[in-house]
Amino acid sequence: MQGLMMNYPLTLPHILERAGKLFPKIEIVSRLPDKKIHRTNYGEFYKRTRLFSEALQKAGLKPGDRVATLCWNHYRHLEAYFGIPCAGGVLHTLNLRLHADDIAYIASHAEDRFLVVDDVLLPVYEQFKGKHKFERVFVIRSEGKPLPAGCEDYEDLLKTASGKWDYPKIDENDALGMCYTSGTTGKPKGVLYSHRAIVLHTLCGGLVDNNGICHNDSLLLIVPMFHANGWALPFICAMVGSKLVLPGPHVDPESVLQLFDSERVTFSAGVPTVWQGVLEALDKNPGKWRIEKGARLACGGSAPPEALMRGLDRHGLYLKHLWGMTELSPLGTAGYFKQNLGELPDEKRYAIRKTQGLPIPYVDCRIWSDTGEAPWDGKTMGELQVRGPWVAGNYFKDEGEGDKWTKDGWFRTGDVAVIDEEGYVKLTDRTKDLIKSGGEWISSVDLENAIMGHPAVREAAVIAIPHPKWDERPLAVVVKKDGADVTLDELKQFLAPKFAKWWLPEGLAFVPEIPHTSTGKIQKLKLREQFQNWKW
Amino acid sequence: MQGLMMNYPLTLPHILERAGKLFPKIEIVSRLPDKKIHRTNYGEFYKRTRLFSEALQKAGLKPGDRVATLCWNHYRHLEAYFGIPCAGGVLHTLNLRLHADDIAYIASHAEDRFLVVDDVLLPVYEQFKGKHKFERVFVIRSEGKPLPAGCEDYEDLLKTASGKWDYPKIDENDALGMCYTSGTTGKPKGVLYSHRAIVLHTLCGGLVDNNGICHNDSLLLIVPMFHANGWALPFICAMVGSKLVLPGPHVDPESVLQLFDSERVTFSAGVPTVWQGVLEALDKNPGKWRIEKGARLACGGSAPPEALMRGLDRHGLYLKHLWGMTELSPLGTAGYFKQNLGELPDEKRYAIRKTQGLPIPYVDCRIWSDTGEAPWDGKTMGELQVRGPWVAGNYFKDEGEGDKWTKDGWFRTGDVAVIDEEGYVKLTDRTKDLIKSGGEWISSVDLENAIMGHPAVREAAVIAIPHPKWDERPLAVVVKKDGADVTLDELKQFLAPKFAKWWLPEGLAFVPEIPHTSTGKIQKLKLREQFQNWKW
Repeated sequence: MQGLMMNYPLTLPHILERAGKLFPKIEIVSRLPDKKIHRTNYGEFYKRTRLFSEALQKAGLKPGDRVATLCWNHYRHLEAYFGIPCAGGVLHTLNLRLHADDIAYIASHAEDRFLVVDDVLLPVYEQFKGKHKFERVFVIRSEGKPLPAGCEDYEDLLKTASGKWDYPKIDENDALGMCYTSGTTGKPKGVLYSHRAIVLHTLCGGLVDNNGICHNDSLLLIVPMFHANGWALPFICAMVGSKLVLPGPHVDPESVLQLFDSERVTFSAGVPTVWQGVLEALDKNPGKWRIEKGARLACGGSAPPEALMRGLDRHGLYLKHLWGMTELSPLGTAGYFKQNLGELPDEKRYAIRKTQGLPIPYVDCRIWSDTGEAPWDGKTMGELQVRGPWVAGNYFKDEGEGDKWTKDGWFRTGDVAVIDEEGYVKLTDRTKDLIKSGGEWISSVDLENAIMGHPAVREAAVIAIPHPKWDERPLAVVVKKDGADVTLDELKQFLAPKFAKWWLPEGLAFVPEIPHTSTGKIQKLKLREQFQNWKW
Repeated sequence: MQGLMMNYPLTLPHILERAGKLFPKIEIVSRLPDKKIHRTNYGEFYKRTRLFSEALQKAGLKPGDRVATLCWNHYRHLEAYFGIPCAGGVLHTLNLRLHADDIAYIASHAEDRFLVVDDVLLPVYEQFKGKHKFERVFVIRSEGKPLPAGCEDYEDLLKTASGKWDYPKIDENDALGMCYTSGTTGKPKGVLYSHRAIVLHTLCGGLVDNNGICHNDSLLLIVPMFHANGWALPFICAMVGSKLVLPGPHVDPESVLQLFDSERVTFSAGVPTVWQGVLEALDKNPGKWRIEKGARLACGGSAPPEALMRGLDRHGLYLKHLWGMTELSPLGTAGYFKQNLGELPDEKRYAIRKTQGLPIPYVDCRIWSDTGEAPWDGKTMGELQVRGPWVAGNYFKDEGEGDKWTKDGWFRTGDVAVIDEEGYVKLTDRTKDLIKSGGEWISSVDLENAIMGHPAVREAAVIAIPHPKWDERPLAVVVKKDGADVTLDELKQFLAPKFAKWWLPEGLAFVPEIPHTSTGKIQKLKLREQFQNWKW
């Protein structure tokens, strides 16, 4: 027997309407390329977004057509975020940090018809425009420079709209947006989000124990809007009416902290590297910037080191670790202390904060080991597999990536993890990055985190190097702090209390910089290439 | 083009599994009929609920079958809350405060097959059992008394389960539960909730600006679980892992405040009458009970008077006003201060807190006046109409109640309201209770609220009485405080600064008590009958 409730679809226009009607005076603040501050509000955003939707339809947009964006975080990117899906199109955020060839591949694979691009990013566009032909290119202009041939002004497009317009009929399972994964190997793969998935993810992501964002927040979005839906925060902000602060291209610590001060930021989100820089700036300039009491930082992309969390705590900034993936819209787990844990000693608190946290509601997590589903014992490693209404069920035009899903319908994350008795998920490695020494597994991530606690180390990566006796052994690749030094023996001594002897690095190499992917993850593949001729 | 996300249904078993796996040690505390405290946790709850589900299927439960409960708030009622829907059945909470004939009508209309009943409520059951035959009656026993003929022990039913059991396949649109509205006129009407509606309502209800419940809360559920899904709080608690405190039949102020103290309650929910009693007890016994810092009270059912909110504020209890209806699962609006309102003077703050608040996400609200959709001007009255995924689209076995929905698909609440420029909804009256004086409308609710601010008044109701000249005029019906007195002239003088002259009551009548419905609302119909021969 079916229930007798209304058939009301979970689609994005509701959030746009809500923001326009209930929160017209709440501010949206953007930092422009010239560092000037631009102020608007959800009222203006609502009007302009609807104009953009209408204009897109007039420009020939058909339901399901992909419209790409190549933009920093600012108010007009936000208009595209809502305007494209509300017109029935599919928002395709291009990652401007990728190689031009990759961007071209992605735009072609997605069959993007239109492009919205920042004028300051036209040089990026120039590099790949020969390889994928957009039908129309709309330029968001912040500088007075003339438009390149074949491009149109975004503002001129808006002028083609009448303002008398109604949303097309959208089914909740219709595609809303897409985002390509920045795979460290293989071709990028497209995740195609539905309206339903994004709405559910927005509701769940806003819960107290997840992001916990409310009407009273001022949210600084440092994570790029081209990374996995900007961690869904633009949608949550518009839904609950929190102030939104968008930093444009300026995400250096000084610029970020200026915004914390001037915009009374209560919540921000970014990868550990950003917070590392912020911490250093705060340490160097105590009292220079006002930090709101109880301000929270959402941190994802990779696991935050303990020293970073401790440092930020000193400045009244609480870093909360969340874990997600492009394929999860992106949120999968969130860190907090369950009340049955009671009062915990400091050390235990940080140990929990370093984990990926607990599965969020409506996401199922399991660990799949060689012998099947692993117990939640904190010890048995296996692949983390997930399931839920905002988890990808397939890739766009999937070509042989079917092995990313199990036969019983779980998504294989490619991460090796354990789940402890309390349900905390702890990633130990990427399946590809585990080190197999003498038949036993060593987690490169655990070693990296510990090495980064050494006073002489700025950043560290651990990779597997073939070994004549042990099959593989760990090599520590380290960036030293200015003027500091450390030897392999000193490092091993430092690590000895925390690990079995056979886990300790076999070698130590210094580098000026560790390569990262465009989303801030360590590029192990590149490091392994760099050290392929390493001799023990 | 459809998105490519997993097809993961929004059903209740996920929340039960989540509670059992992630929160097994979190407490569920119940006060039993003999006032003793019973302690269990989500781990035990999980096991017993699944046993109950399995046993129900063994007892012959088929998908969609209705199972009634006639219970106070306690841990075994919670087992039924989850166990019935997770077995594929429909949880039908009977309102034990209704007249026996009404309960019989409702159970028959719903075609309830089984009944779960508290032993202390068997006297209620005895009164209506002749009028509806349940196939099986399971008694939750708290006393040693023998079972009546034809009844079985709830615990014996559980013993029939093996513990090896898996959930049936449930579609998210399948019915989860039902609840009959306590109409002040006409027959009660059945609202049939789907799994999807309840899950969405649970996600939305947990958001910071709505109930804002988290892992750290200790939630005392005073609102009966037979009132509109216990305001969905049992589902939210199990989802986020907050401690749940269930008061059984003991909701007198003393018992409630003892639980606040012993269980370190941080959140509670109930109708204004409950909080009125709590306030009086706190005023009489300062310092007797420990109140957690920042404790919040959710208040609905009817609008809380300003004096109540001010009084509770003095004791560090923040009362938050939310509005809902059985037909809305129940949540429709929630009260909070948007950030663009800035710092508000006290008077303005309470004025906003008295409103029903802002529509919650995915609920649309509009005011329908004689001339169509009314502007949000805070002045134009009309019927409040709502729409959303957890709003009823029909009644169970609907018999001519089709006029409760507009042709364009909105639910007609029967409430008269205005919405102001900021989106705050303010109920002014039930459509049936408005007073039409000289062709103009007078809100009985506004008058009642103001009259209750008079120092001599404990409670007040205002009803329309036919008038030879003005068509109708307002009569104030008042319960005086012990030893206090007031005349009509004094009352009019007291009200004069707040209302147009023609709004002031035409007459004043004293009664020892004002009749209420079983859900705490004033029974205007009964009052109108009582005063049908009133002469001006």
